[in-house]
Amino acid sequence: MSLAALLEAGESVFSAWSSIPDSQTVELVAGLDFGAVTLDMQHGGHHEDSVLRGIGGIRLNRKHPMVRIPVGRFDMASRALDMGAEAVIAPMVNSVQDARAFAAAMKYPPTGLRSWGPSFAMPRSGKSDGQAWLETANAETIAFAMIETRQALSALDDVLAVDGIDGVLVGPSDFSIAWSNGRTVDPALEDMMPAIETIAQKTRAAGKHAAIYVVDPGLVGRFHEMGFRLFALGAEAAYMQEGAPAMLKAARDSIKF
Amino acid sequence: MSLAALLEAGESVFSAWSSIPDSQTVELVAGLDFGAVTLDMQHGGHHEDSVLRGIGGIRLNRKHPMVRIPVGRFDMASRALDMGAEAVIAPMVNSVQDARAFAAAMKYPPTGLRSWGPSFAMPRSGKSDGQAWLETANAETIAFAMIETRQALSALDDVLAVDGIDGVLVGPSDFSIAWSNGRTVDPALEDMMPAIETIAQKTRAAGKHAAIYVVDPGLVGRFHEMGFRLFALGAEAAYMQEGAPAMLKAARDSIKF
Amino acid sequence: MSLAALLEAGESVFSAWSSIPDSQTVELVAGLDFGAVTLDMQHGGHHEDSVLRGIGGIRLNRKHPMVRIPVGRFDMASRALDMGAEAVIAPMVNSVQDARAFAAAMKYPPTGLRSWGPSFAMPRSGKSDGQAWLETANAETIAFAMIETRQALSALDDVLAVDGIDGVLVGPSDFSIAWSNGRTVDPALEDMMPAIETIAQKTRAAGKHAAIYVVDPGLVGRFHEMGFRLFALGAEAAYMQEGAPAMLKAARDSIKF
Amino acid sequence: MSLAALLEAGESVFSAWSSIPDSQTVELVAGLDFGAVTLDMQHGGHHEDSVLRGIGGIRLNRKHPMVRIPVGRFDMASRALDMGAEAVIAPMVNSVQDARAFAAAMKYPPTGLRSWGPSFAMPRSGKSDGQAWLETANAETIAFAMIETRQALSALDDVLAVDGIDGVLVGPSDFSIAWSNGRTVDPALEDMMPAIETIAQKTRAAGKHAAIYVVDPGLVGRFHEMGFRLFALGAEAAYMQEGAPAMLKAARDSIKF
Amino acid sequence: MSLAALLEAGESVFSAWSSIPDSQTVELVAGLDFGAVTLDMQHGGHHEDSVLRGIGGIRLNRKHPMVRIPVGRFDMASRALDMGAEAVIAPMVNSVQDARAFAAAMKYPPTGLRSWGPSFAMPRSGKSDGQAWLETANAETIAFAMIETRQALSALDDVLAVDGIDGVLVGPSDFSIAWSNGRTVDPALEDMMPAIETIAQKTRAAGKHAAIYVVDPGLVGRFHEMGFRLFALGAEAAYMQEGAPAMLKAARDSIKF
Amino acid sequence: MSLAALLEAGESVFSAWSSIPDSQTVELVAGLDFGAVTLDMQHGGHHEDSVLRGIGGIRLNRKHPMVRIPVGRFDMASRALDMGAEAVIAPMVNSVQDARAFAAAMKYPPTGLRSWGPSFAMPRSGKSDGQAWLETANAETIAFAMIETRQALSALDDVLAVDGIDGVLVGPSDFSIAWSNGRTVDPALEDMMPAIETIAQKTRAAGKHAAIYVVDPGLVGRFHEMGFRLFALGAEAAYMQEGAPAMLKAARDSIKF
Repeated sequence: MSLAALLEAGESVFSAWSSIPDSQTVELVAGLDFGAVTLDMQHGGHHEDSVLRGIGGIRLNRKHPMVRIPVGRFDMASRALDMGAEAVIAPMVNSVQDARAFAAAMKYPPTGLRSWGPSFAMPRSGKSDGQAWLETANAETIAFAMIETRQALSALDDVLAVDGIDGVLVGPSDFSIAWSNGRTVDPALEDMMPAIETIAQKTRAAGKHAAIYVVDPGLVGRFHEMGFRLFALGAEAAYMQEGAPAMLKAARDSIKF
Repeated sequence: MSLAALLEAGESVFSAWSSIPDSQTVELVAGLDFGAVTLDMQHGGHHEDSVLRGIGGIRLNRKHPMVRIPVGRFDMASRALDMGAEAVIAPMVNSVQDARAFAAAMKYPPTGLRSWGPSFAMPRSGKSDGQAWLETANAETIAFAMIETRQALSALDDVLAVDGIDGVLVGPSDFSIAWSNGRTVDPALEDMMPAIETIAQKTRAAGKHAAIYVVDPGLVGRFHEMGFRLFALGAEAAYMQEGAPAMLKAARDSIKF
Repeated sequence: MSLAALLEAGESVFSAWSSIPDSQTVELVAGLDFGAVTLDMQHGGHHEDSVLRGIGGIRLNRKHPMVRIPVGRFDMASRALDMGAEAVIAPMVNSVQDARAFAAAMKYPPTGLRSWGPSFAMPRSGKSDGQAWLETANAETIAFAMIETRQALSALDDVLAVDGIDGVLVGPSDFSIAWSNGRTVDPALEDMMPAIETIAQKTRAAGKHAAIYVVDPGLVGRFHEMGFRLFALGAEAAYMQEGAPAMLKAARDSIKF
Repeated sequence: MSLAALLEAGESVFSAWSSIPDSQTVELVAGLDFGAVTLDMQHGGHHEDSVLRGIGGIRLNRKHPMVRIPVGRFDMASRALDMGAEAVIAPMVNSVQDARAFAAAMKYPPTGLRSWGPSFAMPRSGKSDGQAWLETANAETIAFAMIETRQALSALDDVLAVDGIDGVLVGPSDFSIAWSNGRTVDPALEDMMPAIETIAQKTRAAGKHAAIYVVDPGLVGRFHEMGFRLFALGAEAAYMQEGAPAMLKAARDSIKF
Repeated sequence: MSLAALLEAGESVFSAWSSIPDSQTVELVAGLDFGAVTLDMQHGGHHEDSVLRGIGGIRLNRKHPMVRIPVGRFDMASRALDMGAEAVIAPMVNSVQDARAFAAAMKYPPTGLRSWGPSFAMPRSGKSDGQAWLETANAETIAFAMIETRQALSALDDVLAVDGIDGVLVGPSDFSIAWSNGRTVDPALEDMMPAIETIAQKTRAAGKHAAIYVVDPGLVGRFHEMGFRLFALGAEAAYMQEGAPAMLKAARDSIKF
Repeated sequence: MSLAALLEAGESVFSAWSSIPDSQTVELVAGLDFGAVTLDMQHGGHHEDSVLRGIGGIRLNRKHPMVRIPVGRFDMASRALDMGAEAVIAPMVNSVQDARAFAAAMKYPPTGLRSWGPSFAMPRSGKSDGQAWLETANAETIAFAMIETRQALSALDDVLAVDGIDGVLVGPSDFSIAWSNGRTVDPALEDMMPAIETIAQKTRAAGKHAAIYVVDPGLVGRFHEMGFRLFALGAEAAYMQEGAPAMLKAARDSIKF
């Protein structure tokens, strides 16, 4: 079942997050109990090579591969799909022009201008019929536009109206900086919560997918109630910094002094 | 003899195509009986590092290195030249603005705005006189604009008039999608053949080089008659998928049951 | 079904051969129509890193991963298993001492001295019960000793008697050099064929697996009759050098002069 | 003491230059007697991966990491900062629009639009307080706009007025090509020296940092008098081509004939 | 303070464990709250390149770098020291001959036969006086022999008597397999605990360091009482598999159904 | 002209030395004015992958590729030849047994036991006739045994008598440690010079090649008089540490205070 189908069915999906550009580390992350894995090229260290090789390890673990591209690098949106990503996240989609450029890179004609060449994606998906691929790819890949500034919020209705934009992903840290006019970074900023709820509601109303990156796992329930269904948590540093101290504490506590 | 000189002399050139971003694989491809090797950064997996290192293996085999950049990544056009490419292919040159931006990245002033710094290209070519390099580089490097949409076809005359655009390369799969308004991907689509012939004729009439990517080798003759002289075939997957089954069939057939 | 089970069932298995130490190239090879893929660390360029990452791509294509280690590098035999190989091929097993050292590295106690730590193999196989792994791993991994010298032939009975040696693999090029006392390299040398047949017969008589590297696919039938069941063919260079010229010939022939 | 603080204090800083995209080579360069190391992504071979890993080696040697991005790749300006660079150099800033886009990528709101996510920079700097990072990062990172064309010179006053542009770096080779209208590449071109002095003076007058890439070390004094304080020299090829011949000459001269 | 000095002073040291051969992952692990980091080349994926580059990230975080070599690869013991490791762990030291070969690779003459060439270790330690290095290196590097079989236990007194062996490290999983004659893998096997205590006592009595790999952190106290002072815990998979489920549980629990 | 032929003709050859395991750095070193380049796997960071890829860059610059293997890693001697090395240096050949094992790995039967499979060396040399390769390879590849201990000196006559050992290479740093019984590291130690001269004389008398690693280039003449003809100087760190300070000094001196 594709990620698009899962979300279409209303399922909640948790995505792991990977910042380390190394295929073996990605394979490890893909073995964790998440349904999807996002390779981060914006703030994480992923790049063309690590995305290409990392997607292999994600598929080996039968998880859904997602890629976040750097700001404005729509060339990479197409490439991520050619490498086998099921979803691409574009940061800082602050205008309808940004949204259109992103959609153009994500969808084959006539919806967009994506160029033909699924060199890695087709064999990795076990498919070999090009014509069938052309006919189904647009529906089976997801374009998430990140909404993380006041401009983006203002443009939201127009962004959601762009054919080829399949959903939005909220970046709460940047949104908090924007909401506080640069004064505060706080992914749980109470002031901005109503705006975040509005984003979810408008997105759902437009028949599209609402996703959010979550720093504090305890907030997932609240976002779920707002209408979000895809939740990204991580990355490697967070998993390790949660797990290793627990192990070290148990070790140190066991020593009697 | 440079690739530019070969094409100027009217020679037919076959280029291998490489999708695997690995210098050792490129060295292997460069050992095949093609005259040039194209490293594909658009639909193939090549990236800055694999292009830098791959060109070494191409030159070791005395073949002509070419690079296809991702859509709109004109920064990479300059970099490919600095790394030692003799030709750069830019996909989706759909307007004269695209063509001018591409030419600007490919040519030193006053033709373009290419910045000085042939850090790898000069030593790899065995040259050390910077002034001579400046004076000859524009003529010895080839900018191929890809014509693969209806917009590109409409803009062709203007594109060909841009100083610094040395030729066009037709992408028949994308062109078939465009020609069928998104309905069909078929690199041998009969309907579009007259348009492809027009591209070749206009290009030759403008005194520039006509190139084409070819999926079915049997079509090369037809394209040659149209006026194309550079033919790209491949990539690694195609060579292996042609060769390995032949070996396996011979092996299986030799077993008596 | 494991490779061991397949061979136990008397199936003929064809293994692709990979010399290029690059995980993406291996993934491509693994997509060809072979049942297994051997990563060659002796004459090929594979190394610890490429084996670790390459096995991922082989498993992604549901093929059986095999590794040929360098001469005498039995430390690597254990490591290949820890990385997920189902079979390991040790070259130049010329004495019963060599065979014992190889078996020791391949099998957990009490058969051998393999150290515990299937860090990558267990998660890649989808298993998580260490005790079950310990109890089944020895039977599900295959140790192939290469027989490729006169000394090896003399020691064959003793080698086959070593607990933990599961089969032999004949290297016909080296065997031809040995057979001709250094005068000839000819993997089809007629003189040595009776000796090769003897190897197959003794191996089968000992209840073990007979494998052979085959340069000319047409010889597979003959080796099959001798009793060999695993046939290795390749590597990348061979597939490409078979496939690319066929494509180029079709292209050149299509041009009318 | 940060690089920004050093320059603020009027110190002269010498930066090594690295073209080889390899973290171990960068570590070696960082061990030389320079105060900073610049990783060059424009004409050098550096890329996302080598910058991420290279900065580690620079910090290990307690030097200041700088990155030159490719033309127009402002997405990479933000990424370089996230990886731990203290300064970013943008080539071909030829207009105030270029300068604004560069500043936007370099500075957090409200000055710019830099997105939040110092995944590698924060741990590498030994800091963990996000809010403090947000409040100090803009002042502690340096945006150098390259002035290397006649257009850039014309736009200089406006560029220097952009909030978030902290200084300029002159590229004398490109500037000589521009100054000679494409006729000459000569980083010591006498004709252009008054213009270069003007750049330094205007930059200093605007309270910003004047930097220059220097091919002939003997010119540093002259540039210093003009007002430049950061001098980049190199890269690896230059250091080796200066050092190895000296060693070889000593060796050859020691042989008596 | 060197690791040797710390252990000499009777301090308890916790070492992280790394299996992923990637310098950026190692840098992340080195940022966790352990005092040392061990790069595992036996069951982990580390290799020459990842050890060389990984040690940089460990030193950047001011932790003590340790390396576990593959079985019998004493060439790598010397190389690990040349790359900057402070301690090397050799697995399967089952005889006094093994111990002598290990010590020979670890110590400069006259104690051993380590060859001169600290190409990376010296600059990484900030030292430049070769003679001083020669005089102090043997005391400042630690050779840990792994005791994990019955043979090793029998040979323990002799192993401990070898000049150049500085301590032992117990591998409890392998030891449990040995102790149960291949029937069980259980790093907490009660039956073997007296033998493990004996190892610690003899080691301490010989004036050497007792170290142990610990699967269950809760056992550290017990091993500490036996006399062990260096405890290795991990690796990346363990940290993530401890941390990610905790985050996911918090996330899932927060959703109200 | 092969390196073997050059040395046979009595030419003096200077070899660069490379410690950085990176193909692009090797290509740079290969562009310096040395006749050969040695990739160091013992004290340098080179490994299987960097040797494979580095040799490409050496051949691109038409220099002679040499490889120094780690202590006792004779499997790698064969592999280096398969990758295209013309000479292999084995460190710590301290006995005739070591020499025989080394020769066995270096030479095809009947001289040695080198296994067939010049997968990379043949295409890189432009040759394709296997039988001719078999007949000429032993003469065209050079096995250098390092003489760097008192044991090695004692065994020298026997080592030189081994068929397949083509020369010796003196490591003066290790030899000084040995000569001083571990007290001093001094590659110019006066006391040992007569012994070094003896090595050269015996080697020449045996009709074999005398080579030496030289730290102080000024000593080359003296070693040349002793009979040495291949001189290794370097590596990258040395070239840079000679060149960069010269550039920095010129820069600093040019500033008037």
